[in-house]
Formats: sequence, structure tokens, C-alpha cells
Amino acid sequence: MTLPLSIYDLLEEVLQKIKPTSQERERLNSVVGEIIARVEGLARNKGLECETLLVGSAARGTWLAGDHDLDIFIGVAVDSDLHRALELARAAVPIYQERYAEHAYVHAIFEGFEVDLVPFYLVEDASRIKSAVDRTPFHSRYVSAKIKDLEDEVLLLKQFMKGTGVYGSELRVCGFSGYLAELLIIRYCSFVEVLRAAASWSPGVTIDLEKHAVQLHEDPLVLVDPVDPKRNVAAALSLDKMFQFSAASRCFIKSPDQNFFFPREVDPLSDQELLSRIEDRKSTLILIELVAPDMVEDVIYPQLRKAEQSICSLLDRNDFSVLRSDVHWHQDKLRIWMLFELEVGYLPSVKRHIGPPIWQEYHVDRFLSHHRQTLSGPYIDEGKVVVEVNRNYNTATQLLRSQICNLSLGKHLKLQFEKGYKLYVGRELLEIDGLEFRRFMARYFSRRLNIC
Amino acid sequence: MTLPLSIYDLLEEVLQKIKPTSQERERLNSVVGEIIARVEGLARNKGLECETLLVGSAARGTWLAGDHDLDIFIGVAVDSDLHRALELARAAVPIYQERYAEHAYVHAIFEGFEVDLVPFYLVEDASRIKSAVDRTPFHSRYVSAKIKDLEDEVLLLKQFMKGTGVYGSELRVCGFSGYLAELLIIRYCSFVEVLRAAASWSPGVTIDLEKHAVQLHEDPLVLVDPVDPKRNVAAALSLDKMFQFSAASRCFIKSPDQNFFFPREVDPLSDQELLSRIEDRKSTLILIELVAPDMVEDVIYPQLRKAEQSICSLLDRNDFSVLRSDVHWHQDKLRIWMLFELEVGYLPSVKRHIGPPIWQEYHVDRFLSHHRQTLSGPYIDEGKVVVEVNRNYNTATQLLRSQICNLSLGKHLKLQFEKGYKLYVGRELLEIDGLEFRRFMARYFSRRLNIC
Repeated sequence: MTLPLSIYDLLEEVLQKIKPTSQERERLNSVVGEIIARVEGLARNKGLECETLLVGSAARGTWLAGDHDLDIFIGVAVDSDLHRALELARAAVPIYQERYAEHAYVHAIFEGFEVDLVPFYLVEDASRIKSAVDRTPFHSRYVSAKIKDLEDEVLLLKQFMKGTGVYGSELRVCGFSGYLAELLIIRYCSFVEVLRAAASWSPGVTIDLEKHAVQLHEDPLVLVDPVDPKRNVAAALSLDKMFQFSAASRCFIKSPDQNFFFPREVDPLSDQELLSRIEDRKSTLILIELVAPDMVEDVIYPQLRKAEQSICSLLDRNDFSVLRSDVHWHQDKLRIWMLFELEVGYLPSVKRHIGPPIWQEYHVDRFLSHHRQTLSGPYIDEGKVVVEVNRNYNTATQLLRSQICNLSLGKHLKLQFEKGYKLYVGRELLEIDGLEFRRFMARYFSRRLNIC
Repeated sequence: MTLPLSIYDLLEEVLQKIKPTSQERERLNSVVGEIIARVEGLARNKGLECETLLVGSAARGTWLAGDHDLDIFIGVAVDSDLHRALELARAAVPIYQERYAEHAYVHAIFEGFEVDLVPFYLVEDASRIKSAVDRTPFHSRYVSAKIKDLEDEVLLLKQFMKGTGVYGSELRVCGFSGYLAELLIIRYCSFVEVLRAAASWSPGVTIDLEKHAVQLHEDPLVLVDPVDPKRNVAAALSLDKMFQFSAASRCFIKSPDQNFFFPREVDPLSDQELLSRIEDRKSTLILIELVAPDMVEDVIYPQLRKAEQSICSLLDRNDFSVLRSDVHWHQDKLRIWMLFELEVGYLPSVKRHIGPPIWQEYHVDRFLSHHRQTLSGPYIDEGKVVVEVNRNYNTATQLLRSQICNLSLGKHLKLQFEKGYKLYVGRELLEIDGLEFRRFMARYFSRRLNIC
């Protein structure tokens, strides 16, 4: 397969939009220089031995224009105390927030940049880390050493992944991390070659840059960490996001288009559009609105997924067949929406229960003793005893109202459900205002991926 | 397990009702004597050598009181012509109908008895018959020789089978033939012992009175024909009827009751009862009424079953889940009713199509080329490409009206469907008059077997 020449013109145009200008580079360098100087000055004053370094995309020139995130790591000796590094971080910036991942770090807005100041241990080998962040400087050194002159390819790949909705290893996305994108470029040497390789992926693809893998992984994509042979860099990548990327790669190669990099934001639905979508589909849409717990995204999303799964199972178990579902955490961080689309919202009162084979006397007796009140039966069908009994819940909303709080919903979300929630059914969805909701619904209805 | 004495009192009472009186016996014997004398007189006049014999339950004293069916067989030599026996039969009775099974026979009403005069070949061995009826005289001789003093036990078993709805090997019932009932009595020596044995049947039970089986049968009950080692007497018995009998046997042994022999005829539903059953169940009932083809029961029932099955599959294939169905051929022989009970009668317009795994490029392309017009998607779910498209039929009645005549419905029934049929949905069933319909619906709704 040879690519039309125009693809490179197209990539050049994309690059114009996403590559930081020299002014942006200079500003970044000067801000980084200032912060590092402050930290090191404070350390000298306190007589603390530490190593301060910029990591992440800013360190290796692979950040996308306008992306103003800085990760500055403050390393102390393994036998030292991380707390002393944290004190340096606190003192280095005028206003800050303390945040927690595995342990505390400082988050600050500094001259328009979002800065994370992260204490870590200076370990000798990435496979002997004391905390997950200790691995990051090794990643940074590895990539820096290999990425020279490939920075633009990384930028293209990151933007393509953003545009096709697969960028980000956070639990909301379960996509590709920046480090993973960089390693793919290191492996295949160019954006186009990464796409060509991805186009023919199947589950279980393994990439081992350093040929040092020491264990098997069950994940759909395995990229052995070049600084830690036990670790799969793509462990957080979901099957669906992996192949969303793969399918988008195939399509882009067939018909390159800037749209893959810069998709048009979906238009919010008007009242009339929302109504006609609901009426055209003739399905039963149920929306649950509840107050979001005050937690960070990586805590909320797994709980949201768990709750979504539990509610879908509850509905399916009770014969309310779920066509599709989706969840959304409002940008204002205050509200959560969970949307369930059912084939039908009500079912007949009569429900068929199929029991054991009629010749298993003991089991038949037990079954029938549980079903003394029948609408029809007992009778025999294909050798099994069958009864028809009254269904517990005729409508999906009855079922949800009665059972939702008994489900496994995640710790914080469950508390919110217990405090109260609202159910909207069908046309009642029109009562919910706001562009964000109307965009959520527009995305839900079209749900069209760039895969063909 | 010992049975309470009272069961024998109960059986005695039942016997009082079902055993022919001596007058009935005498009348039967005199009618049989007269017919045989006529046939043999005619044969002598024509110089034809033949053997005339009474077969069936009348021959061995195992007919139920009031059952006025006589089977009189007229046998000719193997190298002779059956047609000559048929001429004797025609001449022997004043008014008759000619009927056809494997070949022609004469059916007549004679002095209040329904008489079949059946020509057959006098073969030497039941395993070398020329026509299925040639086997009957062998059955008759075998049973007659073994059934002495067990006649009452046969009567009880036949009446129990009638009362529990499993008597009759015709295709409408797929139950126990009279010969099968007699052989069970010969095997177990009494009504109660047959029930005890049947109570613990499981599929694949084999009974071989003469220990001469020469081949395996797949049927749920195998009773090797004592006069033909290749044949299974219970071949026509369905799994469900076999175990309806088995389960009823268990129940009768636990709590004997005349009800098993003489069940109360179900009361026809009033308008109000029919309406409230429909509304209580909240399901969607669809009734198809059509003109019955002018054929005998054993031709109509297999076609009815086939049509019922085809329509159920059509509905299920289109996601209209069938709860239960039933068919009925009106006693007036003019109408047929086919009843289908659905969970829901309409479905959303949107329908999910799950395609191949997204990494199978060729298959994905083919799938997507078939689904260019989507309501939602394509998207990826659990590694597979998915689209949501418009459903062809929103309501079950639309589907039936459009597709029913394309189904496999049986030759004669299909012609009737093509001529026209009526659909009644839900409350429209109230428009159908007549006690027979209201009894059919009453039986449908309760559908309670004597199995617990």
C-alpha cells in the first residue's frame, strides 16, 4: 500500500496547528527554570540533598500546543523522607493545593501553567521502585534518549488519538497514555507507520522494545515497559479503545482527513430534535439524575461504571432488555446522569418459570412448593415442568425505584443514591435543561465512531 | 410404599362406571356375530377363501363401557387380491363410507356401533407384513392369550390415561395407544403396579416382554413389539405425554382421587371472565382464525403443529417473544384457531445488530456495507462492531400480515391461509362466540395438569 502524497501535506497542516511555537517553548522553559531554581535554592538553604527534574511531555518536547501542564519531580534518597521534599514543594509556589495519589503532592497554577510538584525516591532501578511515581524519571530518561527528531510524529499521534477519542489512560477513557504513544513512535519510527501497524492489530499483540519480557499478560495490547520488564504499559487500555484506534487507523489510511484530528463538536439537540429522536426510536429511555459525590474523576468513574453495570443487570434479570446505556459526569462536577435505553418499559404480568425435568421428583416437588400460586400450570413443556406466575415488577421504573439501592453501586455513589435521585422517562427528558445535557444526548443518539 | 386400602375401594367404584354390563357385552357379541356371519356367507357364495375376525379392545374384553367401536378384519391369502375382501365388506353392510389409510377400508354405522371392516393379508409372521394392518391380528392374538383376568386392570389404566389426557396415539394427542396400555398391564400385572413403575420413569426406559429387541430406538419410551422385534409400540408417544402420565401416576399414588379418572370438564369463560383474564395477564394475545381444510384429523394436526411452530419462530426471530401458543380444530370441522401469547405486541423502531469482531477487516467491511443507513453507530462493543438500525416490523400483527404466507405451513393449511384468515388481538377475542371457543380459552388460561 502506498500512500498518496497529499497525506504528508495534510499532516504538515495538522502539525502547524498542534506544534508549540518557539515563543511557547521559551515561556515554558523559563517557567520551568524558575520553579526548579526556587526548589533548589530552598533545598540548599535547608541543607537537603535532592534532585529536581522536569518529566513528562514538556521534558521531551512532545507536548501539544496550548497544553500547559508541567510535571516537576523532586527526588530524595531512598533512606530519606518524602515529607522533606513535600515541604520544599509547598514553599516553592505561592498558592497551592495538596493532592493525593499514592502519596501527597503539590498542585499549583503558576504563571498560567498547571504545575504538579511530586516528591519521589531516587531508586537505582525502575524494577525496584518504592512508589509508582519513582518509575516516571526512568520513563522520561528512556524516551528522551530515543525520541530525538521524532517529536513531531509523537504530536501527530497524540492529536490523532485525541481526535478519535482514545487518548488518555485515566479510568474515564481507558485509552492510550502519552508514554504509550511515545513508545509506539519509538517502535515504528513514524506516525504513519504506527497507523499501518495498528490497522492490522488483533487482540494479544505484543511489543517488546528491549526484548526483556519476563511475564505473560492477558491484556489485549501488551507493550512491555522498556524500564521494567514485568510491567505492561498498555494495561489500562481497554479492548474497545484499542480497536477504536485500530479501526480509525484503517479508515484514515484509506481516506485521510483532518476530521480524524479535529472532529466537529456535536451540536446540542434542540427540544424538537430531542423529542423527535425519542419518538423515532420508540424505545423507552430512562434517565437517572443524581448529585455527584465530591471525589476526583478516577474515583468516580469506576463507581459509575459499576453502578451502570449493576443497573443493566438488574433490568436484564427482570426481562427489561437494555438496548444501550451511558453515563455522564457534568463538567460542573455537581451532577451525574445515567441513561438506560430499554426495548420496552413495561412487561406483562404473567411470567414463565421453567423448572427441572419432570422426572426429577425431588427437584420438581421443591420447585412446585415455591410456586403454589400460579396463573397457569403447572404443565410440561419439552420434558420440563413449567408454571406461569405473576411478575414482581410490571414496569422498569417500579423495578428501579424498589431495587436500585440494594445494588452494588460503588461506595460513594451508593450514598448519593440513598440520599435521593430523580428518574426521567421518555419525553420527561425534555425537562432537563442545559447545553451539556443536550450534547450528551446528541452523542448518545448518533454514537458514530470514525471507524468506517 | 404401601397403599392405603381405600385406593382399592376407589378403583372398585371407578370400575363400576367403566366396565361394560353383561347386556352391553351380549349386544356387542350379537352384532359382531351378525356381521361376521354376513361376511362369511357372502364369501361362501362367491367361492372366496377368507378369514374374518374381530380385533381390538372388543375382541379381548378391554373396551370401556359406552365405547361402541368394532374392528372387523377380513383376511385373504398373500397371493390374493385385497380388493376382493373390500367387495365383501361393501356388500356386508347396507350403508357405508369408503375410507383410506394405507389402503381402502369400509366404515359403517351398524345397529349403533361404529364398524370398520378392514381387508388385510394373512401373512405368516408379523415381521413380514405387506401392509401395517396385517400386524393387527398378531397383536390381537398376543394380547388375547395373555390378558385373561387382567381385563379390569386394562380398563382402569385406559380410563386413567383418558382422564389425565394422555390416551390415544393419534397425532392430535401423541399419547398411549390401547395396545400399549394392554402391554403395560401384561408387563406389570396390575393398574397400580403400572403406575408405580411409571412414577419413576426417566427418558429411555425400555420394556422388552419377549426379550427379542433387535435394534435401538431414540424414543423416550421403548416398548418392543412382542410380535415384531424391530418395532417400538410407543414410537408415537411424545416425551411430554409420557411424563404427563408419569407425573400423574406419582400424584395419584400419593393422593388417590376419582378426579384423575373423571376430571371435571372446564367451564366456558363468560365475556367478563375472558376480559379479566386478558387484562390480568397484560400480555398480547393474537388469535388467527381460518377455515379448516376438508381433511381428516391425522392430516390436519401435523400441519397445524408445523404452522404453529413456523409462526412461533417467525415471531421469535423478530424479537416478539412468544410466551405460549395453542391450536384448536373446531368440532364442527369448519374452523381452526391458532392462539399466540406474546410478551409484548410492539417493539421499538431501533434494533441492535451485532457484527463481527472489529479486527476482521473483510467481514467488518461487508457488515457495514449492508448497514449504511443507521440510526446510531457504527460503534464498538466488547470488541465487535455494532450498528443500530430501523426494525422492519414494529408490531407483531404487521409482521404476521406481511410474512405469514411465506412460511412453511403444511400443504393444505397454506392454501387456507392464502384464501384468507382473520386476526383478533387482545380484547377483540371477545368478538368470537360459542362455548367451544370459550372452553378453549378457559383451558388455555388455566393449563393445569394433574401432576402435583
